[in-house]
Amino acid sequence: MTARLATAALDTLRANALRFLAIDAVEAARSGHPGMPMGMAEIAVALWTRHLKHDPADPAWADRDRFVLSNGHGSMLLYALLHLTGYDLPLDELKRFRQLDSRCPGHPEVGHTPGVETTTGPLGQGLANAVGMALAEKRLAAEFNRPGHAIVDHRTWVFLGDGCLMEGISHEAASFAGVQRLSKLICLWDDNHISIDGDVTGWFADDTPARFRAYGWNVVERIDGHDVEAVDRAIREALANADNDIGPTLICCRTTIGHGSPARAGTAGVHGAPLGADEIAATRAALGWPHAPFVIPDEIRESFDARAHGARRQAEWQTGFDAYRTAHPALAAEFQRRQRGELPVSWRVLSTALLRRAHNDAAAIASRKASQNAIERIARALPELLGGSADLTHSNLTDWPGCGALHANPEATRPGRHIHWGVREFGMAAALNGIALHGGHLPFGATFLVFSDYARNAIRMSALMRLRVVYVMTHDAIHLGEDGPTHQPVEHLPSLRLIPGLDVWRPCDAVETQAAWNAAVARADGPSLLALSRQALPHQNRSDAQLDAIARGGYVLADADAPQLAILATGAEVALAMAARERLAATGIAARVVSMPSTSVFDRQDTAWRNAVLPPELPRLAVEAAQPDLWWKTLAGAPRSAVLGIDRFGESAPAEALAERFGVTVEAVVAAATDLVT
Amino acid sequence: MTARLATAALDTLRANALRFLAIDAVEAARSGHPGMPMGMAEIAVALWTRHLKHDPADPAWADRDRFVLSNGHGSMLLYALLHLTGYDLPLDELKRFRQLDSRCPGHPEVGHTPGVETTTGPLGQGLANAVGMALAEKRLAAEFNRPGHAIVDHRTWVFLGDGCLMEGISHEAASFAGVQRLSKLICLWDDNHISIDGDVTGWFADDTPARFRAYGWNVVERIDGHDVEAVDRAIREALANADNDIGPTLICCRTTIGHGSPARAGTAGVHGAPLGADEIAATRAALGWPHAPFVIPDEIRESFDARAHGARRQAEWQTGFDAYRTAHPALAAEFQRRQRGELPVSWRVLSTALLRRAHNDAAAIASRKASQNAIERIARALPELLGGSADLTHSNLTDWPGCGALHANPEATRPGRHIHWGVREFGMAAALNGIALHGGHLPFGATFLVFSDYARNAIRMSALMRLRVVYVMTHDAIHLGEDGPTHQPVEHLPSLRLIPGLDVWRPCDAVETQAAWNAAVARADGPSLLALSRQALPHQNRSDAQLDAIARGGYVLADADAPQLAILATGAEVALAMAARERLAATGIAARVVSMPSTSVFDRQDTAWRNAVLPPELPRLAVEAAQPDLWWKTLAGAPRSAVLGIDRFGESAPAEALAERFGVTVEAVVAAATDLVT
Repeated sequence: MTARLATAALDTLRANALRFLAIDAVEAARSGHPGMPMGMAEIAVALWTRHLKHDPADPAWADRDRFVLSNGHGSMLLYALLHLTGYDLPLDELKRFRQLDSRCPGHPEVGHTPGVETTTGPLGQGLANAVGMALAEKRLAAEFNRPGHAIVDHRTWVFLGDGCLMEGISHEAASFAGVQRLSKLICLWDDNHISIDGDVTGWFADDTPARFRAYGWNVVERIDGHDVEAVDRAIREALANADNDIGPTLICCRTTIGHGSPARAGTAGVHGAPLGADEIAATRAALGWPHAPFVIPDEIRESFDARAHGARRQAEWQTGFDAYRTAHPALAAEFQRRQRGELPVSWRVLSTALLRRAHNDAAAIASRKASQNAIERIARALPELLGGSADLTHSNLTDWPGCGALHANPEATRPGRHIHWGVREFGMAAALNGIALHGGHLPFGATFLVFSDYARNAIRMSALMRLRVVYVMTHDAIHLGEDGPTHQPVEHLPSLRLIPGLDVWRPCDAVETQAAWNAAVARADGPSLLALSRQALPHQNRSDAQLDAIARGGYVLADADAPQLAILATGAEVALAMAARERLAATGIAARVVSMPSTSVFDRQDTAWRNAVLPPELPRLAVEAAQPDLWWKTLAGAPRSAVLGIDRFGESAPAEALAERFGVTVEAVVAAATDLVT
Repeated sequence: MTARLATAALDTLRANALRFLAIDAVEAARSGHPGMPMGMAEIAVALWTRHLKHDPADPAWADRDRFVLSNGHGSMLLYALLHLTGYDLPLDELKRFRQLDSRCPGHPEVGHTPGVETTTGPLGQGLANAVGMALAEKRLAAEFNRPGHAIVDHRTWVFLGDGCLMEGISHEAASFAGVQRLSKLICLWDDNHISIDGDVTGWFADDTPARFRAYGWNVVERIDGHDVEAVDRAIREALANADNDIGPTLICCRTTIGHGSPARAGTAGVHGAPLGADEIAATRAALGWPHAPFVIPDEIRESFDARAHGARRQAEWQTGFDAYRTAHPALAAEFQRRQRGELPVSWRVLSTALLRRAHNDAAAIASRKASQNAIERIARALPELLGGSADLTHSNLTDWPGCGALHANPEATRPGRHIHWGVREFGMAAALNGIALHGGHLPFGATFLVFSDYARNAIRMSALMRLRVVYVMTHDAIHLGEDGPTHQPVEHLPSLRLIPGLDVWRPCDAVETQAAWNAAVARADGPSLLALSRQALPHQNRSDAQLDAIARGGYVLADADAPQLAILATGAEVALAMAARERLAATGIAARVVSMPSTSVFDRQDTAWRNAVLPPELPRLAVEAAQPDLWWKTLAGAPRSAVLGIDRFGESAPAEALAERFGVTVEAVVAAATDLVT
């Protein structure tokens, strides 16, 4: 009984240590969110001191548990945990919470702080990231584990709040996790009944346990979130269920936001603002915490230290992995390559060969079909390629022969490689981020380009986190025709190009499509988005030098001895530009055609390349079936320039009728070019 | 018994009439979605011939029931119903389904086809539109009805499919509808177990009835969707519940997609492609429908005709309204004004006075605070103004003294005017569209600018539908500071400017904020988005002419006798430009400062105005703390030009440190301006 009491007393001290690191760091920063760390401190103690499998000395250990703080505004709780358990996060960094270049930014940022697994803050996305991580774990286990060798066997833990649960993406993520039976995903809900506007009664009255049961989740209810033992018992129950493969678990922890603050606990006032000196003093008194700001007594600090235990666990795993390597050397080497995110050594040769092959094939096919061909060929060489579509598989053309659908029960050694995400664009994109963050796969996902809107903030997060995620976005312009303006992208191409770090590709034929895929696969430090046509595109002939030049993002596809203007185009409009060039030549106007499948890649080229492609003295005409205004950046500096685009919403009609109506025709290009040079 | 059988037989014929109009129109178009109309035909018969309150001769009747086809790809079902019940939609239009300028576009488009209440197709949004409509109805009833005078008393009906239910927005909309107890919202779910990728078992296994019960909905389960009587009974049950105010209703109708097609019923193959001549013949045989394409026997046609009954119902309502007008003449006049969407006659004088007042106040406050002041002042004169925030009320500053929160139980005559949407940005925006479509309110909603991403497709839909919706988007740049890159918009301003028909305003002080609000309120045919600062902005002095010029979107705020360049800026950067102008003057460089709070409004001005503000010969420098590339459009034509912006993600730090780090300073403006002219 004494030992039990001692544990209880220590747990209280540990929880308060987390609480006051958060309180004091927020106070020092004069900004931040103390309420959540104060409310979830005991839950954190239960998970982080009793269950989480991690090695603070090696945040990259492949088989560590993944921890996701979906309610990312409570970042100080995570920083406190990382600091106290022994990650390379000195106290000085906590003291510089939210200051320039601190390793403790306002919201957790992956790559910025050791132990942070994903960047969170935009609510609900952390949960969806975690679903991707749990899916990656389950699939890798099915692919790589062998009898007696469970080298992939870890859990994904999520802290989340009411805000995450109100967001629509929580529905997509939880529903998908249920149908995929991601039993090693365990979420702890901070049920504090408060969101920023106050008590949630007036705007959030879901029976959340019933809702999650409806998704096929295992729900552990009515846990006192301030009782470490109770949370511990709930976690043990969840772990038992995980082993029984009955679905993901939601542990519902009743908590008080800002627990410990005499005046503000249980109110929205403690959510997102410092407590202030007086209330901090009162909280210290109420919780019996006599220590000065940022002072953690040694015995508490030591009780958190997870380094020795973590090193032991990793060593045990390493022993197991060594045995696995002995038994399955090729698999082990492949696992390690995949974990490192390295492409196969054959990739460089292969990608060049695929590009040459596409050129030799000279196929006049839709770029979505060309993408499917590229996928099939790449997938053969890259087992890490993991595809999928948000319920548009046969429109996006993302599957390939033999890929197999990834279902809840993958066969032991050949789990499927194509995911039916359902009609869940945002959840898919955020889960792709989680898959990429987890490691071991190169994920891509697909929908119609116009519905990139639904996923937009997750695409932004791919870019912010510099993840190798590939977005396959088909039906890239009004030419999709009859489905009408709700389905026709107009502003989407330029608006996606504005996202920093996202490479948008709009290939003009099957060759550029293969080049775009090659670039997307090779790009280790950021996402790529392929905008692909529904309709067939003619093949363009190229020299070897032109073939290589596609990777530059923009290049001269057809020239004249003394060109009078350059016509820039992307995608389907390249063929218009080529046809216009012929007609212009007949009227004595010499035009160069520049194909520019990726403006961001072109912008990264050196000045010499850019000036060679677009000589400053040459008038320029840009042609693209999209909102035209962003093209003026590429036109800047030319003596004369014009853009042919579409600055209003589309209409429902067959593609040819729309091309006429919206002036996306050879005649219009000829007329605009003629205007420009005469 | 004979009459009963006759009804059943007639219902079957009616359902088949709908079916074959859809089949034949899709076949004629060689594109479209026959599966849903074939599956929901009996449900449509039950609702449209027995319950829907409408007057085909007057699609604008204020107290009509609202019908929303959330699974908008089934548009031919709606067109068939509108045609047969007597709307101004001739058969020839159905024969031109999906052709250029047909009144039967691929997806329903409001304003395009009489009787279509909202534009649907992007899945899930129709449901959220309907939630907005039902909320508007409930609130208007609370505001305008008087004992014995129920002038607002109609229902909102929704057809929806599995796709809508998978989308995250369905969670936001349904959860919100539950907490608001929108009991007159009745949804009919086409539970056909098929989505585009096939049988949904592998990706959609929710217990949907349980899920909706968890939202506080009334759920009517296990209805045979091909039995008109069964659907009718379920609707009657829902209506009884509606009258008891126990929450919205979901009627779960088990159906077979493509019902009647021998080879394709129950498969994804019938979802989105014509059946083809052979299968159409087989379906005609199977269903015993001998009529040629587009031929509907007179007795079936007559049995659908709702004109006489509709006229009677509207006449009854009109009698009631006349009595209401006698008893409450002022209320009745106000109701009619609100329904017409007309502003009060005092608006023009008031808006000018408010602008003058803001100028006289000369307040150096955050533009979000100035927006709150504008809202308070406008709300006093415009009772139709209905505000709200996605759980950021005290950050967005959207409430005002006395507004009251709109809760499930509004008091009889003073329902609240501010909506706590919860953390549901997408659901909020789509519901705002529904409120605007319903009529009677001028809705605005708010979140952080960065989270416009979450709502983006609904903002697009506001523009596509040309709705008067106002988006209040605060924390408009990196200057929000410590919350870091997940919360700092960078690409959002330009990317929103790319949406056709959306007016984006980024005011530089309290005066421009009032002007932006004035413009947003006055704009009857499209949405406006106000991007507002977290931090205080200095007041700018203006002449009367300059005050009036704000409405032009761009104007000269400060000039020089012989300006050497124009510095264009928006929002917080206008003050930088003004300070830079002073410093440049000291070094002998004369700069004009152009404030450009709305580029789209400026672009709509005549050439004379635009050339007067930005003379073609004057070098131009654009300054904005956002992704800079779109500015090149406004700079095009100038002899020299440059943009000062931010082309990468933000960081977590205090605002001043970030301004230095990202070069958004007076010094940087001075340096760039100096570069440009020397």
